[in-house]
Amino acid sequence: MPERKYDRILRIAKSRGFMWPSSEIYGGIGGFFDYGPLGSLLKQNIENKWREIFIIREGMSEIETPTLMPESVFLASGHIDHFDDPLVECKKCQENYRADHIVEEKLEISTDAMGVKELQKLISENKIKCKCGGTFSEVWAFNLMFKSEAGAGKIKRDVYLRPETAQGMFVAFDRLYQVGRKKLPMGVCQIGRSFRNEISPRQGMIRLREFTQAEAEIFYNPRKKEHPKFSRIKNHILPLYTEKYQEEERKEVLEMTVEDAVKDGVIASQLQAYYLVLAEKFFEEIGIPRSKMRCRQQLSDERAHYSSETWDIEILSEDFGWVEVAAIADRTDYDVSRHAATSRKKLEVHDEGEKFIPHVMEASFGIDRPFYCLLEQSFVEEEDRTYFKFTSEMAPIKAGIFPLVKKDGLPEKAEEIFSDLIKNKIIVKYDSGGSIGKRYARFDEIGTPYCITVDHDTLEDGKVTIRKRDTTEQEYCKTEDIVEKLKV
Amino acid sequence: MPERKYDRILRIAKSRGFMWPSSEIYGGIGGFFDYGPLGSLLKQNIENKWREIFIIREGMSEIETPTLMPESVFLASGHIDHFDDPLVECKKCQENYRADHIVEEKLEISTDAMGVKELQKLISENKIKCKCGGTFSEVWAFNLMFKSEAGAGKIKRDVYLRPETAQGMFVAFDRLYQVGRKKLPMGVCQIGRSFRNEISPRQGMIRLREFTQAEAEIFYNPRKKEHPKFSRIKNHILPLYTEKYQEEERKEVLEMTVEDAVKDGVIASQLQAYYLVLAEKFFEEIGIPRSKMRCRQQLSDERAHYSSETWDIEILSEDFGWVEVAAIADRTDYDVSRHAATSRKKLEVHDEGEKFIPHVMEASFGIDRPFYCLLEQSFVEEEDRTYFKFTSEMAPIKAGIFPLVKKDGLPEKAEEIFSDLIKNKIIVKYDSGGSIGKRYARFDEIGTPYCITVDHDTLEDGKVTIRKRDTTEQEYCKTEDIVEKLKV
Ligand SMILES: [Zn+2]
Ligand SMILES: [Zn+2]
Repeated sequence: MPERKYDRILRIAKSRGFMWPSSEIYGGIGGFFDYGPLGSLLKQNIENKWREIFIIREGMSEIETPTLMPESVFLASGHIDHFDDPLVECKKCQENYRADHIVEEKLEISTDAMGVKELQKLISENKIKCKCGGTFSEVWAFNLMFKSEAGAGKIKRDVYLRPETAQGMFVAFDRLYQVGRKKLPMGVCQIGRSFRNEISPRQGMIRLREFTQAEAEIFYNPRKKEHPKFSRIKNHILPLYTEKYQEEERKEVLEMTVEDAVKDGVIASQLQAYYLVLAEKFFEEIGIPRSKMRCRQQLSDERAHYSSETWDIEILSEDFGWVEVAAIADRTDYDVSRHAATSRKKLEVHDEGEKFIPHVMEASFGIDRPFYCLLEQSFVEEEDRTYFKFTSEMAPIKAGIFPLVKKDGLPEKAEEIFSDLIKNKIIVKYDSGGSIGKRYARFDEIGTPYCITVDHDTLEDGKVTIRKRDTTEQEYCKTEDIVEKLKV
Repeated sequence: MPERKYDRILRIAKSRGFMWPSSEIYGGIGGFFDYGPLGSLLKQNIENKWREIFIIREGMSEIETPTLMPESVFLASGHIDHFDDPLVECKKCQENYRADHIVEEKLEISTDAMGVKELQKLISENKIKCKCGGTFSEVWAFNLMFKSEAGAGKIKRDVYLRPETAQGMFVAFDRLYQVGRKKLPMGVCQIGRSFRNEISPRQGMIRLREFTQAEAEIFYNPRKKEHPKFSRIKNHILPLYTEKYQEEERKEVLEMTVEDAVKDGVIASQLQAYYLVLAEKFFEEIGIPRSKMRCRQQLSDERAHYSSETWDIEILSEDFGWVEVAAIADRTDYDVSRHAATSRKKLEVHDEGEKFIPHVMEASFGIDRPFYCLLEQSFVEEEDRTYFKFTSEMAPIKAGIFPLVKKDGLPEKAEEIFSDLIKNKIIVKYDSGGSIGKRYARFDEIGTPYCITVDHDTLEDGKVTIRKRDTTEQEYCKTEDIVEKLKV
């Protein structure tokens, strides 16, 4: 069996310091990854691009709330009741399995939206057994939240690691509304870790137990589903994989302007369409080609318990097919009204002479999956080299700074250039080891767009050689212009 | 009783959107805080300053590892055995208490370094009782880690929320060493959440259960405790509160150059001294006055189980006294050798012809406490206004942009300036509500250093009025120079 692209990328990502499985020396633990020195820089660049779009350009507020939250939050949110997977245990080997996976494999049918009872019935009727030959226990709903306890004794409280950052925004809604001077729509964001206790996480980077999300919650008046900046994006064409297209099992997408999509009711509102465009823009700006993306409408039986309408953004992966990387969901007034009811607090707004519970449009992004997809999309395998074709903005290291030789004052000059770049907060790396060719290769491998060489001419004419990663072309550049050239 | 400064700051911080207790609508949960829109920006500025110093200037690597780690990690690190507080439970009211606090309060003695047995003896001998009159249970060691489980059934594993980010670096040491091309010293950093299940957390922001750390672990050859850049900082004078000074109960500190401190053996090594200076520099650069800082040597009986020598950086708070905000600890080869022994992996390095387990110098910083200390130090109460005197670099919002009136094309001009700043990724806020005086007041309150007003003259001469927060002085500035002026 040929090595999958995923395995090749993971091998290279490990050895070059992008990422590796956590706690490797202890045999690893499924669903947890470390970001190494380069991975951490790349991940931060992705997050900062997201911030640029949502916080700086759109003017939303960012907040940071704890990952551990008390039980009442998730009783209200519905996660204690609804956030689970159907499991079975083999009575002989005691192994646990996802009941839906077992049924899918044995009966070759889709189990989307099947409940515990339905799965149970199918397993019983078809006498499905474990691969060890044992029979299965009853199917039960296994909650996917990590549980812990805060405090001790009488004041001990059940706490959970949040399954989404969103609840931090919902629970603090009233405080945010006051601080935001009581205006709607109000956009609040959070970038942070979330947790999901997957059973036997497969697919490596694609299904993590601890992962980073970037979520924007836009609290809005349900009578106003227009977006003030809609006219700016109305002619944008989105690749829509609608519910209807999916039912008809079509391969292609529906290409249409967002204006038409809203007019024809394909997308339910301007508000939802606006954030779909923004999401696509984000992925495009980090370096995912448009041809590898689509917007897929979630089918009514796969939507989360809180959503009235959800569109996923998917990126096509060589090994994993279409991977969900973001979702634009209309969560209606579900969350805020649940928290109002459970906490017995009035979580209302006043807008245009009316009092009501605000609705929420959510733009929810994973960061780890786009990270992997970006590695995959950027990975170039040529005959004599492999490299990552990151944009200058995403590249972990913006340039390598090399003295041609370790003498004649060249290292001093190169270090001077290096220090100057560092002072401008541009991440560059000094390297004086091995031939220039070897150094080029090392920096190509990690996706560095430029290599800057200081040679004897530099001391004379003040010019350095800049070699470009993608074309391997070289050009001369005045020392004093380097900072400007590398700024992104 | 007069309101404490802490209470005043917290009240203002809540209402202006810096921070507030988490899950407020559910009555809150001790030891957890939300960072609001302004707090999140301020916190990021603090973290980015730390990155600037450790990652960019010092050239260390940053990594990002999961907060949940398997049990074996903490068996090796000693946290399962040593990371605990002595507790008692009242047999009558079932309340739990810190045994050391109970003894300290009743006997008015210090319990530093007292073990479970010693505390038990003091409680028994002195017949100390609960305030409800009940007698206490035996003292037991309560582990401070939050515990959870990953997976289900047979493959279920105990996992813990990390009590420090450091273990992520130690466990990945070998991978980091390979990726770093096998060079010592090797500095690796991480900024992230850590967790500590404090019993009855008091002191609000000062003692959190979920908090952010920024930790640098420098793996080094124990035969080389010099630092290559020591000569650059050797004349720096540090305020040292040595073990001896503490024993003599002196009030003042020992002011001495780091060169002398190392020569005289006051600080054990150049390496440790170098990071003490760096730490002080960090706090100074975020805006803590030098006069409010000291370096306190930890007493031998208060040091963590892994450390041979630790210096804390402390900041003087009006309500909390000297608050520990960072620690420079020589962790020796404790952690790496424990992980080597437990995992049965060879975690060795080759340096100068020798094979050995590397030692680690740690520079560990809290972020939440400095955040609070910065609020406290920056808070100015004048007769007619209160404001935060943040530096331009730390200020959450760099400028307010105001049209003098909402007509005559002034809003359009102001929005143009606003957009131009946004494009340069400078965080500014547009405000056209209320009188200019009110707008000044609103922006003072949140520590914004500049307010920029567009008036009718602006349309004529292209100049805006810039009003400075601290002096309330005004100056004129050409529109095209604003970006340069606000860049930090
Ligand atoms: Zn079996
Ligand atoms: Zn009692």
